[in-house]
Amino acid sequence: MIQHNYSSKLLEEAVEEFATLPGIGKKSALRLVLHLLKQEDKDVEQFGNTILRMKHEIMTCRECHNISDTEVCHLCSDPYRDKKTICVVESIRDVMSVENTQQYTGVYHVLGGIISPMDGIGPADLTIESLEEKVKNGQCTEVILALSTTMEGDTTNFYIYRRLKNYQVTVSTLARGVAIGDDLEYADEVTLGRSILNRTSFEETFKNSYHGT
Amino acid sequence: MIQHNYSSKLLEEAVEEFATLPGIGKKSALRLVLHLLKQEDKDVEQFGNTILRMKHEIMTCRECHNISDTEVCHLCSDPYRDKKTICVVESIRDVMSVENTQQYTGVYHVLGGIISPMDGIGPADLTIESLEEKVKNGQCTEVILALSTTMEGDTTNFYIYRRLKNYQVTVSTLARGVAIGDDLEYADEVTLGRSILNRTSFEETFKNSYHGT
Repeated sequence: MIQHNYSSKLLEEAVEEFATLPGIGKKSALRLVLHLLKQEDKDVEQFGNTILRMKHEIMTCRECHNISDTEVCHLCSDPYRDKKTICVVESIRDVMSVENTQQYTGVYHVLGGIISPMDGIGPADLTIESLEEKVKNGQCTEVILALSTTMEGDTTNFYIYRRLKNYQVTVSTLARGVAIGDDLEYADEVTLGRSILNRTSFEETFKNSYHGT
Repeated sequence: MIQHNYSSKLLEEAVEEFATLPGIGKKSALRLVLHLLKQEDKDVEQFGNTILRMKHEIMTCRECHNISDTEVCHLCSDPYRDKKTICVVESIRDVMSVENTQQYTGVYHVLGGIISPMDGIGPADLTIESLEEKVKNGQCTEVILALSTTMEGDTTNFYIYRRLKNYQVTVSTLARGVAIGDDLEYADEVTLGRSILNRTSFEETFKNSYHGT
């Protein structure tokens, strides 16, 4: 049995705080705290203050629910962005992933999670209501569902589709298929099967991959 | 190339701060920050404040240089501890390891590192001076060198031994040998070789292992 005989109550408290973070156990937490103790006073002060400021000052965009420093985020307020196309994603991390492709010029809608009964997350915990509102007001012509290809992602896709299908809007999802650079031998059967069924014209694929790189 | 298009300057700053911690990259840092953003205000405040308080209020023990909340740590001020025996360790983590064995009743001396020319750490960066002072004053009868069995650890052991050998003090090191529970087949040759040369009386070993468990 490993006991932790911290020689300092303050040290112990700091370790306990770090150990509440995801993926960080007591041992890593101690390592991080001892690292911070070795740093300059002003660096540690900045670290602590940045955390406090972040929590107090960060806002979520009124339009897309993305994390933002302003009431409307820089994507939603960008005049060159196509406001008629909305890409629905789970979290801010997915916004960053799609932005990194530099292929998308529409705006986003951050759900804040996906429907997952196991984790107690239902449709009411997400920003689906406000998405429906936008569609109802005729603010957009296309909604792209860009959720994970998991059970929960598919459930959420289907739920949103049902909520939106009676409005004048195109609902699309990301193309599913063999990843670029993947060896066919190692592609899983379900993906390979779907990519045969949903095969695309060679000319179109060629044109897109040419634009894409 | 992965770009990071943070939608918020504050978010980016917080991620940068977390990414300065050892073993935490940009991706993990973002995960930690998003986790903190989801927590209650008061929990995040406590997190930030604990870090600030820790840095400002933690002291190092005047006697053994261990981390402490008081000027003299709880081990050095414990009247039941044998002040005549000093166990020299690299860091507070090693103090915790030795304490966990519940086999040691002496006090400690924390070096704050080991001699490592590669990292630019020389004898003057460690608390060897103050250790020599204690020995010179006749404060102790035995110094146990409990450093890692690495090149740097051995160098440091040898350096300290040379500094102390002219004083009236016994300098000992941890026993090196086959670990308990280890299969002989997998013990390395150096360890096995030394454990044959430094073999101990069976009766003594038996007595110790009986007390030890």
